[in-house]
Amino acid sequence: MMKQVDFFFDFGSPAAYLAYTQLPRIAAAAGATIHWRPMLLGGVFKATGNASPVMVAAKGKWMNADLARWAARYGVPLKMPAGFPINTLALMRGSVGMQMREPARFGAYVDAVYSAMFGRGENMGDFEIVGRVLGAAGFDAAAFMALTADPEVKQGLIANTDEAVARGAFGAPTMFVGDEMHFGQDRLDFVASALAR
Amino acid sequence: MMKQVDFFFDFGSPAAYLAYTQLPRIAAAAGATIHWRPMLLGGVFKATGNASPVMVAAKGKWMNADLARWAARYGVPLKMPAGFPINTLALMRGSVGMQMREPARFGAYVDAVYSAMFGRGENMGDFEIVGRVLGAAGFDAAAFMALTADPEVKQGLIANTDEAVARGAFGAPTMFVGDEMHFGQDRLDFVASALAR
Repeated sequence: MMKQVDFFFDFGSPAAYLAYTQLPRIAAAAGATIHWRPMLLGGVFKATGNASPVMVAAKGKWMNADLARWAARYGVPLKMPAGFPINTLALMRGSVGMQMREPARFGAYVDAVYSAMFGRGENMGDFEIVGRVLGAAGFDAAAFMALTADPEVKQGLIANTDEAVARGAFGAPTMFVGDEMHFGQDRLDFVASALAR
Repeated sequence: MMKQVDFFFDFGSPAAYLAYTQLPRIAAAAGATIHWRPMLLGGVFKATGNASPVMVAAKGKWMNADLARWAARYGVPLKMPAGFPINTLALMRGSVGMQMREPARFGAYVDAVYSAMFGRGENMGDFEIVGRVLGAAGFDAAAFMALTADPEVKQGLIANTDEAVARGAFGAPTMFVGDEMHFGQDRLDFVASALAR
């Protein structure tokens, strides 16, 4: 059976972005596939009683410095977007929609959104900017809007979020290898170990 | 000038315990000294609006599994104590008191308390158990009680806690190398890098 890591993410999480920059390499090295699982982090917080780290000012300040250190270690750009934290509802619905309707283009969608959001620090809560970013990546803005309004797509995001919570998630990114759950981009080595077993 | 890492800890934190098991080796390798800074984690939480991770049930469940993985990686025992979370006020005052009055025995005190609390999982919130543990390590229980009631000692713990918060701490363990702050036993490699610069 093919090894698999379930990757629950929300575009609004800079830690999930950092994990996204590293996980494909880790999965490939282990001969594993990534099961991309878009979820709504706000829904996870609400269901679990958790909150964003930035709600504690001192934690948010440290987190920014810490994330920058990880980005430097990984050798990837990290720029916190204007307007952070970003409302990602439409973007996450878009993720589910791409998986449902245009799975071959899902990867290009994720790359376009993450590169804009945390690679260049663009305010992806602004629909004009989203339209420009997706257009530049070859996506049709009107079709994207329609996709995010599709009831089946909306329900898919709710189902993913509910599943994440049911399996024990309380934040992003959350990764599962079988029943083993790892939280945070700083646990990718534990994911690698789990995939190696 | 001698390199130094300031180690802010509370005996109640299993993450601080794990850091305690590793930091002496890391500091020695860097030719650095550890400045042990007892603080009251409850006071830090109150001052910063932070809370124990176990307040979010799903986070607490993951944390237990995660800490066990780290303990296995480090090759150290970790047993969550009966009665966890433990009220550590007297134990932390005792730490400050030892530093003030019996600095040569501070290390033996820390070793005795941590070994009992997280090495063997004893309920160190129970004063009979604390008396037995300290007695077995050669400390006089009555003298210890007097030490924890000393106003200068009490004030020392408050001052350490205030200093931790003023420097940006919001949890335990928190480590400083100069102005660079690292939070968590999972950031010891960043501490090592900071000491190597």
